[in-house]
Parts: sequence; C-alpha cells; structure tokens
Amino acid sequence: MDDIVALCRRRGFIWQSSEIYGGINGFWDYGPLGVMLKNNIRDAWWRDMVLCPPQGPDGQPLDILGLDCSIISHPKVWEASGHVAGFSDPMIDCKECKARFRADQIPDSQCPLKPSKKPGEHDKCKLTDARQFNLMFETHTGALKDDDNKTYLRPETAQGMFFNFKNVLDTCRVKVPFGLAQLGKGFRNEITPRNFIFRSREFEMMEVEFFIHPSTANEWYPFWRKTRYDWWCSLGLAGSNLRLRDHEKDELAHYARDNGGCCDVEYAFPFSGEKGFSELEGIAYRSNFDLTQHAKTSGAKLEYFDQARNERYLPHVVEPAAGLTRGLLAVICEAYTPDATRPSGVYMKFQPRIAPIKAGIFPLVNKDGMPEVAEKLYKELRGKYAVQFDEKQSIGKRYARMDEAGTPFCFTVDGDTLTGGTVTVRYRDTQQQERIGIDKVPAFMAEKIGG
Amino acid sequence: MDDIVALCRRRGFIWQSSEIYGGINGFWDYGPLGVMLKNNIRDAWWRDMVLCPPQGPDGQPLDILGLDCSIISHPKVWEASGHVAGFSDPMIDCKECKARFRADQIPDSQCPLKPSKKPGEHDKCKLTDARQFNLMFETHTGALKDDDNKTYLRPETAQGMFFNFKNVLDTCRVKVPFGLAQLGKGFRNEITPRNFIFRSREFEMMEVEFFIHPSTANEWYPFWRKTRYDWWCSLGLAGSNLRLRDHEKDELAHYARDNGGCCDVEYAFPFSGEKGFSELEGIAYRSNFDLTQHAKTSGAKLEYFDQARNERYLPHVVEPAAGLTRGLLAVICEAYTPDATRPSGVYMKFQPRIAPIKAGIFPLVNKDGMPEVAEKLYKELRGKYAVQFDEKQSIGKRYARMDEAGTPFCFTVDGDTLTGGTVTVRYRDTQQQERIGIDKVPAFMAEKIGG
Repeated sequence: MDDIVALCRRRGFIWQSSEIYGGINGFWDYGPLGVMLKNNIRDAWWRDMVLCPPQGPDGQPLDILGLDCSIISHPKVWEASGHVAGFSDPMIDCKECKARFRADQIPDSQCPLKPSKKPGEHDKCKLTDARQFNLMFETHTGALKDDDNKTYLRPETAQGMFFNFKNVLDTCRVKVPFGLAQLGKGFRNEITPRNFIFRSREFEMMEVEFFIHPSTANEWYPFWRKTRYDWWCSLGLAGSNLRLRDHEKDELAHYARDNGGCCDVEYAFPFSGEKGFSELEGIAYRSNFDLTQHAKTSGAKLEYFDQARNERYLPHVVEPAAGLTRGLLAVICEAYTPDATRPSGVYMKFQPRIAPIKAGIFPLVNKDGMPEVAEKLYKELRGKYAVQFDEKQSIGKRYARMDEAGTPFCFTVDGDTLTGGTVTVRYRDTQQQERIGIDKVPAFMAEKIGG
Repeated sequence: MDDIVALCRRRGFIWQSSEIYGGINGFWDYGPLGVMLKNNIRDAWWRDMVLCPPQGPDGQPLDILGLDCSIISHPKVWEASGHVAGFSDPMIDCKECKARFRADQIPDSQCPLKPSKKPGEHDKCKLTDARQFNLMFETHTGALKDDDNKTYLRPETAQGMFFNFKNVLDTCRVKVPFGLAQLGKGFRNEITPRNFIFRSREFEMMEVEFFIHPSTANEWYPFWRKTRYDWWCSLGLAGSNLRLRDHEKDELAHYARDNGGCCDVEYAFPFSGEKGFSELEGIAYRSNFDLTQHAKTSGAKLEYFDQARNERYLPHVVEPAAGLTRGLLAVICEAYTPDATRPSGVYMKFQPRIAPIKAGIFPLVNKDGMPEVAEKLYKELRGKYAVQFDEKQSIGKRYARMDEAGTPFCFTVDGDTLTGGTVTVRYRDTQQQERIGIDKVPAFMAEKIGG
C-alpha cells in the first residue's frame, strides 16, 4: 500500500490536502492524473446509470433521472433520516497519551505510548468509557451561531432524492418503477480517518434510489445486485479481488429478510487485512422507510398513485450506493503492476476506457520536421481523446512516464513517418511495438477506446 | 424573472432545497433537466480549458492541468489568503422588525414593517450600526469543538491551486507559463441570499490560475480577457446581454494598474436593475500576491526556477474565475423565449451543444410497429446523445414539452417511415418540419451537435 500511496503522490494522482501547512487529517486533493481518472469513473457511472441506463427484466431501458442537490439542506432532513439521533460511532479516549480510538477498532489499534507493542495491547493506556460521537459536520447558516441556525454537511447524497421525491412526481411524468441518481460529495467527521482515501472525511458518492411497487422487491433487489456487480467488473475489477457479499440473515432488518436483502460489493484492498475485503458499494432493499420518515416529519403527502394498479402507496426502494473515491482507489490498486523489467519498475494497467491519458504522442527527435508531424496528430486527436504530447528526453524515459500514468498506447513519429507515413504504436501492457499508417491512428483509437 | 423561476420549478430545472420542510434560504437543488444543462456547461468549460485548451499567442495549445481539491482544508490556508481577516460584508440589523440587511444594499432594500414603502425608506426601522460579518461557513474537524479544530468551507476554489503549486512543480514537469484549472463547489454565508441561484450560499465555480513570468502580464491579461469573453459568447450569450466591463483605474490595486488589469464578464439578468448587468466571471491580474502569502505563512519555498531565463522567481498570476451556477442562470435567461403562437407559450432556445436533451423521438401513434421503429432509433442514438423517447399524448403536446425543455430537434416516426424509410424532423426555433431518411438521422445529429 505504501508503494501505491507513493506513486499517487509522485505522479500527481493524489496529494494530502494542505501539505505545505503540514496537512489535515482525512482530506485529500486530486492532482492532474487523479482528477482525470476520477472524472472518467464518474462519467462512466453517469452514462451507464442515467444517460444510457440498464435494461430492466423486460428488455426496456430503465427510467432513471439525475439530480444534484445541495450539500447543506434543512436540518429537519437529518432528523427525519435518523442521522441526528443515530449517525454516530463509539469513541474512546486515552487519558494518558491523549490518543483517540473508535471503540470497535481498539483490537486493531496501537497505543502511541507503546508503538512497539502489538495492536490491542493498551495496558499503559487509561481508556475512557466509549461515548457516542455524531459523525455529521455541523455549521451555522445565517449570522447567528445558535441552535436554530444549526445545519449539517450531508453524510450521504441519498436524502436529497427522498425529499425531492414529490417534486419529481409533480414535474417529471415518471411512473413507478423509476430511479433517481445523484453524484456528489459527502462529509463524515471520522474519529480516525485512515487507509488513504478509503476512509476520509470528505468523499464522493454515486447513489441510485430505485422506486418500486412493494410487491416487486423480490425481482428488483436481485436485479440491482447483479447489475451493480457487473458494473464494477466492467471497470476492470473482475476477478478474485472483487466479490459480492450477501449480509447474513441476522444482519438484516426484518423487511429485508423477507422481501429482498442487502449486500456489499467488496474489493480486496492491500489494507483489508484479515477480513480480506472492504466495501465499495452497498445494495440495500430499504422498504419505504425513508419516504415514510420524510412524510411523517414534514407533513407532506409523498404517496404515489399507480394508474395501472389503481392503487395509492408509498413506493419501496432498492438503493445501490457506491463510493466514487473508494472506486477510484480500487481501480488504482488493481492497476498497480510491479514489473522489474521496466525502467519505471511499475506500470498502471488501467482499462483504456478509464485511463486518464489515452495516448502519448512523441516525435523521436526534436528536429527534421518530426515535432510538426507529431503535433499535427496530437491536435487531430485531442478534441476527442485525452492525449499527451511529449518531446522531452529519450523515448525510453517517455515510455516510463506513460507506464506510471497508465497510458495504454504511445505513438512515435520517426524518420519512417516522414518517408513512409507510418508511426510506431507501443502497447503499455506487452511493451510490444508495431507500425501502423499515421492516417489509421484515429480508427485505431476508435477501435481500442471507442467514441 | 418570476416567469423564469416558475418554468425552472415546473419543468424540473431548479427547486429550492428542502421544499417539503419549508425550504432553506440560499440553497438550491438541480432537477433532471437542470443537472443535465449544468453538466453540459461544466463539461464545455473543462474541455475548452483543460482537455483542449486555448491556443496561446504563439499558436501552440496552452498547458493547463486540472485539479480537484477538498472543500475543507487546513485553516491556515484562509489566514494566508486574507479571508479570515477580511472576507466579510457589513451587516445591519433592525431592532424593531428583526430584519437583517447588507449595509450597501440598504438603499435597494425594503423594510418588512412597511413593505409598501419605497426601497431605502427605513424611517420605522431602528437600524444598528454596520458590523463586519465573515462570510465563511465554519465547522470543526475532529471531535472537539474548540478553536484549534475550527475549519472553514472554502469560499472559492482558487486557494487549492496556490497551496498545491509546489506539488504541481515537483510532479508534473510544467514550465511557466502554465495554468491550473478547477471546478467545484464554494460556500458563502450570504447575509441576504437573493436573485434565485445568482447569490446563493452554495454554488459552483470554474477557475483557472495561469502562472506567468512577471514581465509578461501585459500580454497574458488581455489574452485571457478576450479568451474568456469569447468563451461565454460560444455558449450562445453573444449580443447586447453580454458585456466586458473593465474596472475603473481607481478600483484597481496598484500592480494591476501598471501591469494588467481587472475586468468582469457581465450579463444583463432581468434582476440586474439600474446597473443593468451582473457579474458572471472576473478576470484579474493578481501579481504574485497569493503565492507570496502562502510562502510567508507556511514557510514553504514556492519559487520557480526558469531554465530558459536562468532566473528564480515567484510567478505572477492571471485568474479567470467564473461562476458555473451563474453561467447556468444566464444561459437559462438567454434561452427563455416567450412565444404566444405555441401551445407552451414559451420555448427555451438553448444552443444544441448545451441543451439538456438533444432530440425527442416520437412514434406518431402507439401501434402499427411505429413504437418499435422509434425505439430502435432511440437506442441507436442514446449511447452518443442525451435523447428522450416519448409516446404519450398528441404530437403537439410532445412538441410543447420539448419546447419547454429546450430540445432542439424532434424526430417523429409515422406511417411513411414504415413504407418510405423517412422521419419528420421538427426544428424547435422555427417550428418547421422536413422529412429525412431515418438512416440519415445519426449524420444529421453529428452535423448539428457534433461528436
């Protein structure tokens, strides 16, 4: 994991926030490669869920609409959702060394007084009893810092899709079943942020709330369970590092036991330890819990009239809730491939579809008209693909840089390009090279990457 | 303006946040059409600034890298930037009616006690003296709510590009001149949020920091002034509603007076009142003010060694800082076109490039195989364009819905499609229709919209 964090830092994927001020725990900044990679995953999700949604069991595309709600909303939202009362972790302090622990992590944590000791050995610590600590960040909206003006930074995007449910019904001509989808930031004041961007205090989520008739949970829950697992596979996470874990019967709420269920898509991160896997996404059958709560707390009527069934009801919900920043980390871990035969010692095996840079374009030497020809190719491609022009240092060093950036293809313009109209294309994964006509490059890119 | 707000609400462009809880002042949610439109403007900016950046004065594409920094950062960042000390508005309360005003808005504001009176007549009010109110939202990071843990929600994205400047130099092989670009949310605890999404407490920005040698400000400032004005024109805002206003000499800091300047791209919103225009973007020559402050406060060395000039210096900056949500509002206002001859009474004249839905696809009647043919066309296009399939109600009503959504083209599958292989295409702006071959539709879309 340390090697991965180091590469992310060195190549401008991810930096700790405010590094020149000593950093701030639990916040991360995305550098040029990181933001491109993150945007590509974000856009793949948006395209696959909203613009070009999955086909339902009847072969028709699902009806899924996008929303984008504010991070700060009315504080009653979080009373209705249960977060004000219950969104907390048990916190334990050590009076001796002033360290702070999450109670359930004590067995895995080390005492700062005795860092040489095994995790869980806190015999020098004076631990307090556990007390509940609410994870929502608080702020005040308006000039007065009193309880009336207290608001929260959302810890999830889901609630915006519930409290706007009536707006959607009133304005968007939707019929159940339909979904709402939202991408955006969430904030959790974690007691002990850790594992790089996996458990951070500011993160990004990708959530769908899929509204259904209560009697169809047994159809839609398995549908989303499979759809979302397949989606993560489509990003290149297939294989033994990815798994779908159904929650045990006794972990489930009673409604979920009988009518659907709850499962996690999990990835085997290097830090996942004994459990072996950590959560990327949860797919949960939530009954009509959230709409009921908002109807009760706000007094608004949130029932839907189903013309086909001639029935009025509060729709039930299947919720696939994924972490974008966690997904990004999984994609980075999966791509990280040590290879002692390369100058860089490592390459990032990103799927071409989500690689931050799709191709490098190099003139062999900085003379004889090669830069001009390479630049022409660069300008031709850059409107459609993220490509990088590089004319500095040897071709070997340029390949090495592209290997670390995870660029799948490199095109080199050399003497033969000027006389024969061909370039070399170098494949990142095999390091093999072949010549193709420079006029064939756009078709090559379209075939390999699409678009 | 009320008509525009009503249409935004009715068609699911923009809703007040937390409406079922009575709303929360200064926060807005984007519905299905709003988020698509906003994403299209966001993506146009990212493409035109980062993926396919403008050509500099020498004809070469500029070097501009994207960043994505966290909303919460180390509090010292905001001491260095001057926001802790100086980012405030003068606030005045009325002890009689409990209303709160921004001191500089008193002449335009009405007293709630006497709403019938003219703005500025506060003779019944007992106004306090103005006192400075810092506009940054505060929160606490970590478990203790003490001053040591106080952090802020960023009021602008710019600082992330300054405090990561050294990270970029160390990892990205850039040479001055180069730019950093960032899209993201900002928060300002406005005393009186107003004018719909124009002055809201949570908003989105699109900012570039372009780093230059100090001697070149006189070249780069006018370059960015023109480039950014042209960009807003390219969104369809050209004409008398858009203007570029240079700040008066006496509004400028001394360095800007001599070496560059400061100007705003402004739009004539319906609420702009006597001034006639309100700010969309500011383009400012900022010298090395920000890097100097961060170097001083953090102790980090932020100087750049310029090999070509054999000179070590703190780069100066030209900053084009634009509002995404303000841009969205300008695009909506510009598109809003009342037209009594249409059933909808109004249509949204969005540029095809940024329209939320690019085409509607309709079977004339819901039988005779027309839905199947229309669906096939829909599935063919939707991988590439945001298109909508609609088979409900009369064609006239479907056109009316698409007019309000600002969809530039509608294709109708009718009897002649089944026998002759043609569809009608209906143009939003002229309401004219013509027949084209159904196989020509993808080429039609590519020509009209691109991609």
